[in-house]
Amino acid sequence: MTQALDIQHTLTKKIKPDEDKLGFGIHFTDHMFILDYTADKGWHQPRIIPYQPIVLDPAAKVFHYGQTVFEGLKAYKTEDGRILLFRPEQNLQRLNRSNERLSIPYLDEELALDALKQLIVVDQDWIPSKAGTSLYIRPFIIATEALLGVAPSTRYQFMIIMSPVGPYYSEGVNPVKIFVESQYVRAVNGGVGEAKTAGNYAAGLKAQEGATDKGYSQVLWLDGVHRKYIEEVGSMNVFFKINGTVHTPALNGSILDGITRKSIIQLLKHWNIPVVERTISIEELYEHHAKGELEEAFGTGTAAVISPIGELNWQDQKISLNGGQTGELSTKLYQTLTGIQNGILPDPFNWMVEATAISSHS
Amino acid sequence: MTQALDIQHTLTKKIKPDEDKLGFGIHFTDHMFILDYTADKGWHQPRIIPYQPIVLDPAAKVFHYGQTVFEGLKAYKTEDGRILLFRPEQNLQRLNRSNERLSIPYLDEELALDALKQLIVVDQDWIPSKAGTSLYIRPFIIATEALLGVAPSTRYQFMIIMSPVGPYYSEGVNPVKIFVESQYVRAVNGGVGEAKTAGNYAAGLKAQEGATDKGYSQVLWLDGVHRKYIEEVGSMNVFFKINGTVHTPALNGSILDGITRKSIIQLLKHWNIPVVERTISIEELYEHHAKGELEEAFGTGTAAVISPIGELNWQDQKISLNGGQTGELSTKLYQTLTGIQNGILPDPFNWMVEATAISSHS
Ligand SMILES: Cc1ncc(COP(=O)(O)O)c(C=O)c1O
Ligand SMILES: Cc1ncc(COP(=O)(O)O)c(C=O)c1O
Repeated sequence: MTQALDIQHTLTKKIKPDEDKLGFGIHFTDHMFILDYTADKGWHQPRIIPYQPIVLDPAAKVFHYGQTVFEGLKAYKTEDGRILLFRPEQNLQRLNRSNERLSIPYLDEELALDALKQLIVVDQDWIPSKAGTSLYIRPFIIATEALLGVAPSTRYQFMIIMSPVGPYYSEGVNPVKIFVESQYVRAVNGGVGEAKTAGNYAAGLKAQEGATDKGYSQVLWLDGVHRKYIEEVGSMNVFFKINGTVHTPALNGSILDGITRKSIIQLLKHWNIPVVERTISIEELYEHHAKGELEEAFGTGTAAVISPIGELNWQDQKISLNGGQTGELSTKLYQTLTGIQNGILPDPFNWMVEATAISSHS
Repeated sequence: MTQALDIQHTLTKKIKPDEDKLGFGIHFTDHMFILDYTADKGWHQPRIIPYQPIVLDPAAKVFHYGQTVFEGLKAYKTEDGRILLFRPEQNLQRLNRSNERLSIPYLDEELALDALKQLIVVDQDWIPSKAGTSLYIRPFIIATEALLGVAPSTRYQFMIIMSPVGPYYSEGVNPVKIFVESQYVRAVNGGVGEAKTAGNYAAGLKAQEGATDKGYSQVLWLDGVHRKYIEEVGSMNVFFKINGTVHTPALNGSILDGITRKSIIQLLKHWNIPVVERTISIEELYEHHAKGELEEAFGTGTAAVISPIGELNWQDQKISLNGGQTGELSTKLYQTLTGIQNGILPDPFNWMVEATAISSHS
């Protein structure tokens, strides 16, 4: 990092929320990180400041043309007091891939990682310690130029905010009911489905609402071209255990390249459990179920880590998976991943990165 | 409108820009309109206030999940000093259709139209009078709840900002060169292409940049499923005159239902010029051109009104339309539409709505 990080501490610390009632993304820590971009200076003026509102011209491009990207990752406090981050470099690489797709300038990943670590150290008292809790970190970039022409912005802000979170599902790691969406589409090849950008989530709200109304927790997205190949579940990647082999949709351009997904594939290979990335149709899945071959299904993502699927509803055909119970593999994956993340289990792949105060910047 | 509109006038009026150098969406008027939404109160507290920055929590949903919709329309000052709006009720109806798709609560269209008129009256000195200029009006809604869960917001702000604008293309009403996009997709059926929402524009930036780099003014979008049917041109609808008949892509779910498009169809029917809305493939278009049947092509939208197309480039096959000149029909449509909009020509369809100060609200 060539630019010195300026740290302005808050004078009025907030009261921390009850660790039993954290929820997800409701409470935010005392500080945030900001970095500005202008066409002439590039990214400049990295600073940690008290958590505070953003002040933007009403014509700022983010409000009108959605030029924005984000990331989501977690920090954990170990029993011996260390602060661990799960594969943060992967998130920053993906942020830059999203930037590329959204015509947002490349961000120095080392600078961003340093900023992230520093911010966590400043707000380390906010990392909760109860089982299932963690500090959720949300880096994001917004286009701030006040100009209504449809063209990439010449000004941006990169920010990091952090929220102490409880388990994503209030129900805990129990199987969820999933509605297979046939009307709405999340993303399509050639679009922005591969990028972590706001519009993908806006596009999914209506279907999600419909699923909730029908008593389902999330939707399963089918591809936008054939309307039959499985893409994701809510904002998670998805895996199926069929006849002892684990299958997950291949990255095809409209699916997010999930870091949990990638880690699970690595773990499965390490355990010599066969895993294949391929195109999977919903019909095929139902056929496997009919033959008694569909053993487990689960969603994967930073927020929930592993979310077992207990029921699928596709065009009013409901199928129950593993008797509506959390499967053996789902449990093992959840325990292993969260164990590594919390520093309780060994970390064979060197996934965890420690956040410690950086005294100077060279 | 059951709620009284509060008007707070600015104390420091801005210096107005030179009418010859307005550009598009660069300068903003002295005032803006705001209306708040909360789950308990619904839409409330309509107010006109001095144009000023928006202050939002960094966790506001608009920054992360793009839950936002907008509109664009224009006001004109006639030679006899009246202020005319072009079909504003159409924009507010479309805003509500976009709201429906984006899970944003319904907005009272009468209240919004009253607000629009009042705001224009307050800032009427900002309506430019030079030929080709107008006051561009940007109503928009953003999700403001500070919560990172992916679900519709419980808080919103509806705002209207206004910008005196010159002709959209600095080149004037001259034919533009269009690049037919084969790699990227703007929208797909089942997605949000039919809604005027930020994510659609973010998704188009990369292709637009590529086209600009190659010396083209806009891209022509093909459908996301077959990658061969014509959808739109940049952020305009598109029309082709083939053998005396005018063809435009049918509204299929991924195309914006343009108000200029709709008005042109009405005008053509009024003139007894045959017009059809249908599926048009890019191959077919090139075949018509090869046979000498493709007479004219033009984009249509609020910003440019009519934008004649002089050249198309599809997979390195370049074709020149109407000898690269503005066609007769394009010219007639441009002159008729802008004539009606400026109050110079009669308004046979009662499209224009006058903005006058509303003294009280019932
Ligand atoms: C659309 C979508 N798919 C999948 C994932 C899972 O990715 P990761 O495992 O990196 O959290 C996410 C993010 O959480 C997502 O937003
Ligand atoms: C994507 C898109 N298509 C078409 C149009 C044209 O619509 P209208 O004629 O209502 O301006 C617009 C808006 O200007 C647009 O954003």
